[in-house]
Amino acid sequence: MAAVIIDGKAFAAKVRAQVGAAVTALKAQGITPGLAVVLVGEDPASQVYVRNKHRQTIEVGMNSFEHRLPAETPEADLLALIAQLNADTAVDGILVQLPLPAHLNAELVINAIDPTKDVDGFHIDNVGKLVTGQKSMVPCTPLGSLMLLRDSLGDLNGLEAVVIGRSNIVGKPMANLLLQQGCTVTIAHSRTRDLPAVVRRADIVVAAVGRPEMVKGEWLKPGATVIDVGINRIQPAGADKAKLVGDCDFDSCAAVAGAITPVPGGVGPMTIACLLANTLTATCRRYGLPEPVGLTA
Amino acid sequence: MAAVIIDGKAFAAKVRAQVGAAVTALKAQGITPGLAVVLVGEDPASQVYVRNKHRQTIEVGMNSFEHRLPAETPEADLLALIAQLNADTAVDGILVQLPLPAHLNAELVINAIDPTKDVDGFHIDNVGKLVTGQKSMVPCTPLGSLMLLRDSLGDLNGLEAVVIGRSNIVGKPMANLLLQQGCTVTIAHSRTRDLPAVVRRADIVVAAVGRPEMVKGEWLKPGATVIDVGINRIQPAGADKAKLVGDCDFDSCAAVAGAITPVPGGVGPMTIACLLANTLTATCRRYGLPEPVGLTA
Ligand SMILES: NC(=O)c1ccc[n+]([C@@H]2O[C@H](COP(=O)([O-])OP(=O)(O)OC[C@H]3O[C@@H](n4cnc5c(N)ncnc54)[C@H](OP(=O)(O)O)[C@@H]3O)[C@@H](O)[C@H]2O)c1
Ligand SMILES: NC(=O)c1ccc[n+]([C@@H]2O[C@H](COP(=O)([O-])OP(=O)(O)OC[C@H]3O[C@@H](n4cnc5c(N)ncnc54)[C@H](OP(=O)(O)O)[C@@H]3O)[C@@H](O)[C@H]2O)c1
Repeated sequence: MAAVIIDGKAFAAKVRAQVGAAVTALKAQGITPGLAVVLVGEDPASQVYVRNKHRQTIEVGMNSFEHRLPAETPEADLLALIAQLNADTAVDGILVQLPLPAHLNAELVINAIDPTKDVDGFHIDNVGKLVTGQKSMVPCTPLGSLMLLRDSLGDLNGLEAVVIGRSNIVGKPMANLLLQQGCTVTIAHSRTRDLPAVVRRADIVVAAVGRPEMVKGEWLKPGATVIDVGINRIQPAGADKAKLVGDCDFDSCAAVAGAITPVPGGVGPMTIACLLANTLTATCRRYGLPEPVGLTA
Repeated sequence: MAAVIIDGKAFAAKVRAQVGAAVTALKAQGITPGLAVVLVGEDPASQVYVRNKHRQTIEVGMNSFEHRLPAETPEADLLALIAQLNADTAVDGILVQLPLPAHLNAELVINAIDPTKDVDGFHIDNVGKLVTGQKSMVPCTPLGSLMLLRDSLGDLNGLEAVVIGRSNIVGKPMANLLLQQGCTVTIAHSRTRDLPAVVRRADIVVAAVGRPEMVKGEWLKPGATVIDVGINRIQPAGADKAKLVGDCDFDSCAAVAGAITPVPGGVGPMTIACLLANTLTATCRRYGLPEPVGLTA
C-alpha cells in the first residue's frame, strides 16, 4: 500500500479544538454561540446524526438547542419554528436535518432560514454567493473535504480535479470550491460515458456517489489524491455484522493513489467539525468580530 | 471547411419573432411586458448595447424604459431607482448595464433588484436557484448558447463539454446549464495547465475568454461543436478598419469542428434575443400564465 492515509478523525479533532478555544475566548466576552437543530420525524440515521451533533456542540462549549417535531408536523408549524429561531438572538446557527418527510417542501423550508444563520450552506442565497465568490456559509462536507485537500496538497492551483456526483449538498459545492482554488474541474455523474477515463485524468478525485467501492484503483492516475465522501453500509458475505465502506475500493485505490481518505475516519468526522466551524463563523460575523483563521473556504 | 456554420443571427431573429407573437397575444389580454434598462455613465460600448436593447425591445412590442444616470451618481440614488422599478407594476424586467463606474458596488446593486425582475439572472437568488435546479432567471448569453447547442445537437446527455472561462456572467452559468443537460462538464481557465489537451476531450467547446483567436483547430476533437462567445476588436496589420473576432481561430477551427458559431453573427445576437425572452418569461410568471415554450433553460 503506497498511499498516505489521510486521517480525517485526527484533523476533525484539531478543528474542534480550535473551535473550542475560540468559543472559550468568545465566552470571556459574554458571547456563547448557539446552534439549533431541527429534526422532523423518526428517521433512525438522522437521529444518530442529530445526537452526535448535539454532543459535539456541547463539547466545544456552544449552546445546543434541539427541536424534535413529529413526522406529521404541518409545513406551517415548521416554518413558524424557523421564523422563531431566525429571530432568537441566542441562536447563531440553524440546521434542519434532511431528509424531511415527503409532505414537506425541503427547498421552501431551507430557504426560510435566515441565510446568515444557515450553517449548512444550503439556502439559495449562500449557494449563489459561493458560486459568485461572495462571502457565504459553505456546506460542511465539501468544506471539510477542502480542508483535507489543502492540508495534503497545499496550493491547489492548476491541478486537475474530478468530482463524481452532482448533488446540491456535496458534488456541486465541492466543484465550486475546487474551481475557486484554481483547479481545472470536471463534474461527472450517472450520465458520464467513460467514467474510468475521466477519473484517470485527475490529480484530485472526489467521490460522492453513494455506490459502495465503485471507484477502482486501476481508474486512478498514479499518485492522485482521493477524497472518498461515500458512506455505504454493506453486509459482507459470511460476516455477521454490517460494515461501512466508501465509494472507492479502498485497497486497490490505496495501492495507486498518493493519498486517500479512509471510510470510516476520513471525510465523515469532518462534517460535524465544519458544522461547528460554520456556527463559530456565523457568530463572529454577527458580532463583527474577526473570522476564525483556516476554518472558512 | 468542413464545419456547419451555426447561424446565430437567423436563430435570434426566430426567437425575437416568437417573443413578438407572444407579446401580441399578451397585449390582447391587456398586458404589455416592460423592460427597464439602467445605464450609469458614458461607457461607449455600453451605450451601443443599451441602444440596441431599446430598439429590439420596441420591435417585439414591449415597453422600453430607459434610465440614464450620470457617471457620478451616488449609490443611494441608484438603489432608490431600483427600489422604484421593483415596485413599478409596469416593469417586468430590470437590467443594470455593466460595468458600473468604480465607486458603485455592482454586487450590492444587482442584489437589490427584485429577483423575479432580474432578467440578466445575476442576482444571487437566481444563481443559487440555477445551480440547485430551481426555477430561475438564466443569464442571457449562456441561455442563448444553450439554445444554439440544443438546436444543433438535440439531446446533450453524456456529451463531454469544456467551458473555457469561469466568469459569473458567462463561464459558470454556462457550465451549470450544461451540467443540468447531462453533460460531463469541465471548466478551464487561466490556471489550467494544458488547455489544448483539455479542449481535445470535448464534444462541446464553449470559449468565453476574451483572447482573440486563442483556440486553434488543432486543439479540437474532429467533429466537435464550438460555441465562440468571445467578442474581440482587433486591428489587422495593413487594414484600416478594426475587425471583430472571437476567442477561436475561425478558419483552423472550422476545418476540424463539426459545427461552429461565427463572430460576428453567432452567440452575439442571441444575447439580446434571450433578454427579451427572459422579460417575456418574467411577465408570464408574474401573471401566472404558462411560460413560453423553448425560451427557457
Ligand atoms: N458526512 C459525510 O461524509 C457525508 C455527507 C453527505 C453525503 N455523504 C455520502 O456521500 C455519498 C453521496 O451523497 P449525495 O447526497 O451527494 O448523494 P446523491 O444526492 O444520491 O448524489 C449521488 C450522485 O452520484 C451520481 N451517480 C450515481 N450513480 C453513479 C454512477 N454509476 N456513476 C457516476 N455517478 C453516479 C448521481 O448522478 P445523477 O445526478 O446523474 O443521478 C448523483 O449526482 C453517499 O454515500 C452519502 O452517504 C457523506
Ligand atoms: N453577448 C455576447 O456574446 C457576450 C456576452 C458576454 C461576454 N462576451 C465576450 O465573451 C468573452 C468572455 O467574457 P467574460 O465576461 O466571461 O470575461 P472575463 O470575466 O474576463 O473572464 C474571462 C475568463 O477567461 C479565462 N482566461 C483568461 N485567459 C485565459 C487563458 N489564456 N487560458 C484559459 N482561460 C483564460 C479567465 O480565467 P481566470 O478566471 O483564471 O482569470 C476568466 O475565467 C469576452 O470576449 C466578452 O467580450 C460576449
